[in-house]
Amino acid sequence: MRKVLAAALALTSGLVVADEGQWQPYQMPSIADKLSERGIAIPAEQLADLTQYPMNAVVSLGYCTASFVSPKGLVVTNHHCAYRGIQYNSTPEHNYLAEGFLAKSPAQEPSAGPNERLYVTEAVTDVSQQVTVDLPVEPLARYEAIQANRKALIKACEADDNYRCSVRSFHSGLEYYLIKQLIIRDVRLVYAPPKSVGSYGGDIDNYEYPRHSGDFTFLRAYVGKDGNPAAYADDNVPYQPKSYLKINADGVKAGDGVFLAGYPGSTSRYRLTSELRFASDWLYPTQAARYQARIDTIERMGDANKDVAIKYAGTLASMANRMKKLNGLLDGFRATDIAAIKQTEENAFRDWLARQPEADALTQQLAQLETLLAERQQRHQQSYYFDNAQSSTLLSVAKQLYRLAKENEKPDAEREAGYQQRDMKMFAARLKRIDTSFDVAVDNTLWQMDVDAYLAQDNRVGVMDQWLTTDAGISLADKLTAMYAKSELTSQQKRLAWMQASAADFEASSDPFIQMAVALYATNMAQEKADKALAGELSIARPAYMKAIIAYNKSLGKPVYPDANSTLRISYGMVDGYQSQDALYKQPFTRLEGIVAKHTGVVPFNAPQKLLAAIEKGDMGTHKVQQLYPDPRNWLCRLFSCLDKPAQFDSVPVNFLSSVDTTGGNSGSPVFNGKGELVGLNFDSTYEAITKDWYFNPTITRAVHVDIRYILWMMDKVDHADNLLDELTLVRN
Amino acid sequence: MRKVLAAALALTSGLVVADEGQWQPYQMPSIADKLSERGIAIPAEQLADLTQYPMNAVVSLGYCTASFVSPKGLVVTNHHCAYRGIQYNSTPEHNYLAEGFLAKSPAQEPSAGPNERLYVTEAVTDVSQQVTVDLPVEPLARYEAIQANRKALIKACEADDNYRCSVRSFHSGLEYYLIKQLIIRDVRLVYAPPKSVGSYGGDIDNYEYPRHSGDFTFLRAYVGKDGNPAAYADDNVPYQPKSYLKINADGVKAGDGVFLAGYPGSTSRYRLTSELRFASDWLYPTQAARYQARIDTIERMGDANKDVAIKYAGTLASMANRMKKLNGLLDGFRATDIAAIKQTEENAFRDWLARQPEADALTQQLAQLETLLAERQQRHQQSYYFDNAQSSTLLSVAKQLYRLAKENEKPDAEREAGYQQRDMKMFAARLKRIDTSFDVAVDNTLWQMDVDAYLAQDNRVGVMDQWLTTDAGISLADKLTAMYAKSELTSQQKRLAWMQASAADFEASSDPFIQMAVALYATNMAQEKADKALAGELSIARPAYMKAIIAYNKSLGKPVYPDANSTLRISYGMVDGYQSQDALYKQPFTRLEGIVAKHTGVVPFNAPQKLLAAIEKGDMGTHKVQQLYPDPRNWLCRLFSCLDKPAQFDSVPVNFLSSVDTTGGNSGSPVFNGKGELVGLNFDSTYEAITKDWYFNPTITRAVHVDIRYILWMMDKVDHADNLLDELTLVRN
Repeated sequence: MRKVLAAALALTSGLVVADEGQWQPYQMPSIADKLSERGIAIPAEQLADLTQYPMNAVVSLGYCTASFVSPKGLVVTNHHCAYRGIQYNSTPEHNYLAEGFLAKSPAQEPSAGPNERLYVTEAVTDVSQQVTVDLPVEPLARYEAIQANRKALIKACEADDNYRCSVRSFHSGLEYYLIKQLIIRDVRLVYAPPKSVGSYGGDIDNYEYPRHSGDFTFLRAYVGKDGNPAAYADDNVPYQPKSYLKINADGVKAGDGVFLAGYPGSTSRYRLTSELRFASDWLYPTQAARYQARIDTIERMGDANKDVAIKYAGTLASMANRMKKLNGLLDGFRATDIAAIKQTEENAFRDWLARQPEADALTQQLAQLETLLAERQQRHQQSYYFDNAQSSTLLSVAKQLYRLAKENEKPDAEREAGYQQRDMKMFAARLKRIDTSFDVAVDNTLWQMDVDAYLAQDNRVGVMDQWLTTDAGISLADKLTAMYAKSELTSQQKRLAWMQASAADFEASSDPFIQMAVALYATNMAQEKADKALAGELSIARPAYMKAIIAYNKSLGKPVYPDANSTLRISYGMVDGYQSQDALYKQPFTRLEGIVAKHTGVVPFNAPQKLLAAIEKGDMGTHKVQQLYPDPRNWLCRLFSCLDKPAQFDSVPVNFLSSVDTTGGNSGSPVFNGKGELVGLNFDSTYEAITKDWYFNPTITRAVHVDIRYILWMMDKVDHADNLLDELTLVRN
Repeated sequence: MRKVLAAALALTSGLVVADEGQWQPYQMPSIADKLSERGIAIPAEQLADLTQYPMNAVVSLGYCTASFVSPKGLVVTNHHCAYRGIQYNSTPEHNYLAEGFLAKSPAQEPSAGPNERLYVTEAVTDVSQQVTVDLPVEPLARYEAIQANRKALIKACEADDNYRCSVRSFHSGLEYYLIKQLIIRDVRLVYAPPKSVGSYGGDIDNYEYPRHSGDFTFLRAYVGKDGNPAAYADDNVPYQPKSYLKINADGVKAGDGVFLAGYPGSTSRYRLTSELRFASDWLYPTQAARYQARIDTIERMGDANKDVAIKYAGTLASMANRMKKLNGLLDGFRATDIAAIKQTEENAFRDWLARQPEADALTQQLAQLETLLAERQQRHQQSYYFDNAQSSTLLSVAKQLYRLAKENEKPDAEREAGYQQRDMKMFAARLKRIDTSFDVAVDNTLWQMDVDAYLAQDNRVGVMDQWLTTDAGISLADKLTAMYAKSELTSQQKRLAWMQASAADFEASSDPFIQMAVALYATNMAQEKADKALAGELSIARPAYMKAIIAYNKSLGKPVYPDANSTLRISYGMVDGYQSQDALYKQPFTRLEGIVAKHTGVVPFNAPQKLLAAIEKGDMGTHKVQQLYPDPRNWLCRLFSCLDKPAQFDSVPVNFLSSVDTTGGNSGSPVFNGKGELVGLNFDSTYEAITKDWYFNPTITRAVHVDIRYILWMMDKVDHADNLLDELTLVRN
């Protein structure tokens, strides 16, 4: 049944104006007509220019997006993006996660931690030619040559320590761009609401809507007195950004055009139908089952041991998030037959291919791509349980350390990415961080589960089987447990010391995890080599396919945006609700009253008393943003008679929906009105939309934003952050 | 927090046009302006006349409402109202509950069972004067006199066996009406969809919306060849009703005015705030806890014993329904501080009272009512556990039988209602029916729980304590279990035989439950006597209060409808969605596509294949109702791009919402458009609206109806009930 209805989508999706696309800024002029259709008045050429407002105010946190909002380096992002920095400053006496934090003056702004960074993208250069020139034909050599070219470009770009550079592949290797980012290394905490505001609704509301989350936090960028990036120092000064965002205190209303800028991580919009089927039919269900079992195990062991619960809290939170995403993917594939839709689209593309002058060559290329993908999928399935059987944290550490020793035998430029000199600080940081989220009993149990799963299936690898063989009278469980007892890798100091060791040192070691890492090395490297060779073959087949896809779309008059790859992108759309189920419509704005209605006093629905009191008080008093809030007598009635007028406000909007195209990494992205003024922060998307990484369904794909009016109201009426309000540039419609 | 926001409702509820009111038909002219405001064109005077269309087509099933829809006695009601009749005809070979049933000709229409009745209200006469004339002052005597007057009126009215009569109290005894109903005793099953359509969504969707239930069934009234009511006989003929409903095949759309007629059971709209608090703070939570424990016990025992599961399926279903209602009441009281709203309204009433010329007397009367109610609440709390400690089914049987023997000592007219000659058929039927839903182990366990609860609290009664005392070495549990083992009341034949016994026979019996009933008799009767005396006092205080309430409302220009009391009423309203939560709007119509989206194949979301096939086929073909359904190419797209136009249809609507005022007993009520044409059947109301029995909140109170277009589409395209479609009178807009 579902399949039939879903298939109908393919026939009808053209009826909807699709706001699909995570566009490279330079592409904006090519979609100027669409922007204008949405009422986005700021010139497309201006958006394309990273040195102009507003794009020069958009920054990356590495894993999230943020933006400058004052001439003194004030930055706004999501609470969940600044979580580490808040946690870093929290103590049992001053638990800023629980209580929130507000620096009333710059002197009160603490460091967000030595590893926090702000990255300002200053240049994006097309280096496709340099990366792909004169590549050898032999697959592995081809792969290695591409990596060598990328590394050389990065090395040249990173001549100045204040910059981080990367060479990113676009359109699956059809194009390469060199991204040059200024690194700000002194990031300070300025203002964060309590977690009970910043992630009100917690895991329960994660990916859900209606939503009432105050997911915002203010940071500040500091630099040395000379204006150059510097590590934290007392006498550092606020960074003066090239520009900062104007804030529109009137916000937006349903139907308004909006756009956002940010660093979306990864999408799979141009994958072949066979790849989608592999993911929906095998990969996601297989991963989901393992994930759920691991979550259940950690929770069970945490229930029995409070230390475990504390250590694994962060791990569990991110696993819960990943699990909800996996379930959303599986539910989404059940609800809509996306494979059928993709197949219909792919068939149309193949029909077009067959009509081209070079049809035979193109069709053959596509067949070759399918063959390579089938091979990769088969390899993935074959190695899945073998790879998981290496999931012990200590084994992973041993493997990385031994690999480092092996890579160190080569000149720096030839070392594998991640094992070069430039990576060593992060390498050491990772080795240190293990202690905060590691427990021998839990790790042992989780590993045992993976080993059992490996042994229960047929894709066995000799060297692993050999390692898992036990002496008579000793159970495998005992053997694995004994490895933990004997290993010295549980010691942070020992782990760090091994960074200096030679390969021979490892080979002579009696540490059981190091012995296992050494034993598995050749097999793992052979596997990696085969993967690289396959990648080398795909580095011809994929770009050829993408070239044809782009030509096909051009024939239809459509520009093509590349899949997300953690580089700066712009998406546009409209403030809009959506039909969640038959007869169930989700309206685009939530309101303060919804916070009260959800409040139970129990985490995660434990709104702080000061917030509830401000709502109860209907405090819309007098301040520089006073006209923002209407007559309190009106908004008090909202829960009852006024809610049937969704487009009008007589309360303070909390979160809102828009049709902009986002994915993980877009957290914290500034949401702009048509004039390029800040009206909200992106922080999530809806459950029904989780499959958008594969297929953008315009009727149900909505991103969830914090409304700037809620942020301003919180600053004004709840937290009295007058110093910050004065620092912002507020404009009105 | 909630309290503040809820209190705001009292100030703002005037902003909404309230469709509150379950009006006596004779009152319709007094609200003619409101009907006309809703676009109800049929004259109010016509609605007031029970002998005219459409009211003379509305009938009662005793516990549900139904209506005539053809000149040949065809009746439509809810599937859940006709459930017993479908079950009665189901066998393992022909399971009509599972498969549905359709008689292709009158000859194929089986009896719905010997106890099924249709009641046609033919006259409603004001007998207030006759019931309340010359009442004695002494409370108990006053109570008895009222009952005697009522019984006398009934006896006179029931001179003809074809009529059932009742004298109902309106406005808590301010008025009494004699209701005269023709009894049709031959009711046959004509057409029922499978349970998977009739209660699609089952318990999960019960009280919920969006809803997709085909909750309809057709019956037919038969009478003797002479046209008079008769018991089932082969040569009976279809009844010719005075009129039958026209059916509008175009249905209604959002914003249309609608009204319905039916037999709502009971509401508490005029109770004092203190009564609401007693219910919300003590009665409902106390009942809910006991109910849930009983449900859990029956389910646990049913899991272990399939026979138990089958026997208690019906009991569990109705307990689940009652439990959901209790939870809805408790959740509703938590969500909105209805007590505060009622208190505000009551204060305004008291202020008005204080301004009346006879203020002192009125205020004193109200204080007296409060005193009596407080006394009744205290008595309720005191006897609650004692009453529950008598919950054994066999004890209940023994008590009824012994009471019957005692009542039989009096002349028929003086016997307690329920123990008169006219009641004996039903009395015997109840005694017989026990076997179908009774298991000794379950009954014993449930009783034990109630006995334990009684013993765990302080309101003890000597005679009960004495009975629960055990001999040394015997546990109470053993004693109770032994009572079941020894009692002969488990035998249907024995139970029926005891109907002929004298009080002395009971007093000499060695049956332990009969012994217990005899032992408790004096105490129970004393309690009943005290309750009656209190009722006698309330029979002065309540009508006085209601008289003042009516006068108060008159001063505000508002007519007053009486609380529901299972008599024929009319409610009006509008087809309308509602704001379920902040940013969550429930639209007024669901559609066929929603059935597909909910379908899992697992009960209760196991839509039958023929229904799914018809939806998949988009079968809107050619038939007499062909123009009903639009172009199938359009409706197929609904799940995707068309759903954002909630007011328009290019699919078949399944269920719809309106603001009409309903309660239990309104199931099966015909829903009319403004011209008095049938457009749907009422079958449920929404979870948020469950507190409406106490307080009608116009913003969230919605009734749920089956759309007549779904019924016609099912008949036409799924079940091919052409014979019945031909029998109906279909009209168009």
